[in-house]
Amino acid sequence: MTFNAAQIAAIINGKVEGDNNAAVSSFGKIEEATAGQLSFLANPKYEDYIYDTKASIIIINESLVLKQVVSPTLIRVPDAYTAFAALLTKYQEMMQQQLNGIEEPSFIAKSSTYGENVYIGAFAYIGEKSKIGNNTKIYPGSYIGNNVTIGDNTVIHPGVKIYNDCVIGNHVSIHAGTVIGSDGFGFAPQADGSFKKVPQLGNVVIQDYVEVGANATIDRATIGSTLIKSGAKLDNLIQIAHNVEVGHSTVIAAQAGVSGSTKLGNGVMIGGQAGIVGHIHLGDGAKVNAQSGVSKSVEAGKAVTGSPAYDYTSALRSQAVNRRLPDLEKKIKELETLLKQALAEKV
Amino acid sequence: MTFNAAQIAAIINGKVEGDNNAAVSSFGKIEEATAGQLSFLANPKYEDYIYDTKASIIIINESLVLKQVVSPTLIRVPDAYTAFAALLTKYQEMMQQQLNGIEEPSFIAKSSTYGENVYIGAFAYIGEKSKIGNNTKIYPGSYIGNNVTIGDNTVIHPGVKIYNDCVIGNHVSIHAGTVIGSDGFGFAPQADGSFKKVPQLGNVVIQDYVEVGANATIDRATIGSTLIKSGAKLDNLIQIAHNVEVGHSTVIAAQAGVSGSTKLGNGVMIGGQAGIVGHIHLGDGAKVNAQSGVSKSVEAGKAVTGSPAYDYTSALRSQAVNRRLPDLEKKIKELETLLKQALAEKV
Amino acid sequence: MTFNAAQIAAIINGKVEGDNNAAVSSFGKIEEATAGQLSFLANPKYEDYIYDTKASIIIINESLVLKQVVSPTLIRVPDAYTAFAALLTKYQEMMQQQLNGIEEPSFIAKSSTYGENVYIGAFAYIGEKSKIGNNTKIYPGSYIGNNVTIGDNTVIHPGVKIYNDCVIGNHVSIHAGTVIGSDGFGFAPQADGSFKKVPQLGNVVIQDYVEVGANATIDRATIGSTLIKSGAKLDNLIQIAHNVEVGHSTVIAAQAGVSGSTKLGNGVMIGGQAGIVGHIHLGDGAKVNAQSGVSKSVEAGKAVTGSPAYDYTSALRSQAVNRRLPDLEKKIKELETLLKQALAEKV
Repeated sequence: MTFNAAQIAAIINGKVEGDNNAAVSSFGKIEEATAGQLSFLANPKYEDYIYDTKASIIIINESLVLKQVVSPTLIRVPDAYTAFAALLTKYQEMMQQQLNGIEEPSFIAKSSTYGENVYIGAFAYIGEKSKIGNNTKIYPGSYIGNNVTIGDNTVIHPGVKIYNDCVIGNHVSIHAGTVIGSDGFGFAPQADGSFKKVPQLGNVVIQDYVEVGANATIDRATIGSTLIKSGAKLDNLIQIAHNVEVGHSTVIAAQAGVSGSTKLGNGVMIGGQAGIVGHIHLGDGAKVNAQSGVSKSVEAGKAVTGSPAYDYTSALRSQAVNRRLPDLEKKIKELETLLKQALAEKV
Repeated sequence: MTFNAAQIAAIINGKVEGDNNAAVSSFGKIEEATAGQLSFLANPKYEDYIYDTKASIIIINESLVLKQVVSPTLIRVPDAYTAFAALLTKYQEMMQQQLNGIEEPSFIAKSSTYGENVYIGAFAYIGEKSKIGNNTKIYPGSYIGNNVTIGDNTVIHPGVKIYNDCVIGNHVSIHAGTVIGSDGFGFAPQADGSFKKVPQLGNVVIQDYVEVGANATIDRATIGSTLIKSGAKLDNLIQIAHNVEVGHSTVIAAQAGVSGSTKLGNGVMIGGQAGIVGHIHLGDGAKVNAQSGVSKSVEAGKAVTGSPAYDYTSALRSQAVNRRLPDLEKKIKELETLLKQALAEKV
Repeated sequence: MTFNAAQIAAIINGKVEGDNNAAVSSFGKIEEATAGQLSFLANPKYEDYIYDTKASIIIINESLVLKQVVSPTLIRVPDAYTAFAALLTKYQEMMQQQLNGIEEPSFIAKSSTYGENVYIGAFAYIGEKSKIGNNTKIYPGSYIGNNVTIGDNTVIHPGVKIYNDCVIGNHVSIHAGTVIGSDGFGFAPQADGSFKKVPQLGNVVIQDYVEVGANATIDRATIGSTLIKSGAKLDNLIQIAHNVEVGHSTVIAAQAGVSGSTKLGNGVMIGGQAGIVGHIHLGDGAKVNAQSGVSKSVEAGKAVTGSPAYDYTSALRSQAVNRRLPDLEKKIKELETLLKQALAEKV
């Protein structure tokens, strides 16, 4: 889609300086943008780029006084970064909303229903008795099992797999390849050393405004629900085990994993590649550093690091000394020699 | 499906106390169950829940004497937990067996064959000369390459990808999104700093009663087979490199990885996010703690932890001292001061 | 496909000893090969296997003098391993090139184009205005979004998902289940503790001769491009965040992750399960050990290990002392006792 400067100014409530008809069809960084692209200049530090940029339109702060005439058309706003981000969000929503209808071939069981303005891509599969809300977009190749509920304004990216009985809220976004509702990892050891599967008959419930990255896995509960509360943001390749609860607006970075039945409070932050053992509790606002291994519950607001993880500040101190260990060992030997020598002389 | 108390009692060999016609269609935890759900009470510690539960039927120990009359219908058995688990397993098998037939559109090469009572979901792909056994279920969107053999009573969940020439046994379960038989990571360094691919022409062999979680990856051997022996249980997002062997009833937790040509014995237990280097051997019953990095072979029955990993008990001792390192460093400085002072005084 | 000894000798420029018509249809290790298989003997250490092998044809060094007559047909070449690898590569290319045509049902938007000798498997999806080059193979169930460009001689394995606007070069191989171009993990914290999505409008650019393993994720840039330069080799389950750059012939082993905006130079080697924080730079030829956590930029040619990672040699020294920590602590206590005793006696 192509927009001209006047249209963009109308959306972001800005003032055009230059050609009202200057047209753009994509976005670029000010230093890399080409003709036909829109960019922005928010930080005066990068002002010099505006004199060389090839961008056709630049969103710029009202307050910025330029040293010379520039070739792009300018759109002046109080805060260029906020206006640019708002524009991008608006643009994505528009693109998303344009997408609708049922592509063929797709498979939608007769007992399932879907709302208005939905998109169901080719090769998408929707099993028995599932419900898809209004404005929801199911991209090609996704699998929605039986008795699944998906709310309104939700985006299921390509190749997502949602097992039977799971519940997905409104304004949720699940990225490509992610699996929701696979069996929890539960096996009872037998006398002969083998393992017998413990049936996993619960489900996964994902509340509103949750985003889940690509190729992540969220297992169904043994009984009851694995629960991702509203506003939580989960990155790519994360693992959420059976019966875990993830609190409101909790953030989990890529490749981290949470073991069975652990409860994360609200506003918790988990760094990349961190691991949390099962059956513990992380209080609201707890912070876990990247690659940490958390083996005990963490109080609200506390930060931990290390594997096994403990208090952030103490752990950093130990890490610092750890680097000096060879010197420390040498020092101990010196002291020992000195002391024994002194004792020997005394005798 | 709906079952009444008399039917359930017949399956688990129990005795009904209450309404033989009480009906349930799903399962719930005793403290969360709603009308129309079945639950169980195994641990007397949770007895109080039975007086408030909304469940319609409760499976309960023969021996438990209740303090007051309860509203759900009871089914008495010698061991409520075992009976409940057996019932769930039975239920899942029944549901699974109901699933059969070939959904359209699917793609099955004419040179491939399949047994009785199979399910092949829509958008599933089966290449040339592949064989699918009896009672095996291939969920929608799965990809089975050429010359693949899959045994009886196996479940291939949605969107699993199995490359050419792989062999999957009986009673195997592979969860959604998992990739079996992708190329091993083999590249020969060239004089100019680039890498030349080493062709990966082996396969993956998965024996009976193996379960593999979601979005895992198991690479084909360079030559020969990457081998997962019977009864092994592999969790979500695990990585098994080329030419690895995983022993009978070995368990690998989520996000762990095993590098090329390493052999894991029988009954080995690998914790979550652990990594094992290539070309080593872990003896039968070896245990690797979560997040450990194993760089040397481990003897049968030994437990290791840490990155790099070593003997579990020794490593825990070092970890404990590690936390006291800042104090230890301070103590060394004090001793040094004291000693030097003493020596100075002596002079 | 079946080849006879004369045909193979012609391909690898070898000399047949035995039956020119001996035929093989697959490959095996010399110690495991069965009748109808081709194998090789490069290392004289394994010479004994040749007297027992069931292989029908063996590629062997010109120079090797055998102690007795053997049953397989031999093909003599100057370097058996190189000849065998070249043959395998040739064989794979032949198999790949045989694969062509458009399988039905597939979905190819009318505005998209594709070159000669392409393969587009069943259930593959190609969105609007995308371009597929010559000899490129798109396996079943893959998703190619809108405005995607894929070069020549590239292989997209089953179930790969490539989002809108991404660019894939020539001779690229992307393994099953991998996701290219999912949204970067960007959320702006709000005053109420919730997070607002930062639109991710850039793309991913993958240059020529790159190989990406299975179930990996490479996020699109916020603005601009996430860039994987030519010859880079990325293993299974790796995570590349938004705006990352990966240099030429850089190698990243399985389950490693690189956070946003970090730049990896050329010829960098990242071990399995390593993690690299965002906004740093690893110079050309830098080496990161498996499971390391890199939190600071690394100079060209330097090796680091540990979490947090630092200089490889120093870190190994600290690790060694770390194992002796309990002894060291004991020694310090002994010295303290000795010293205090000495001081007391002096008084």
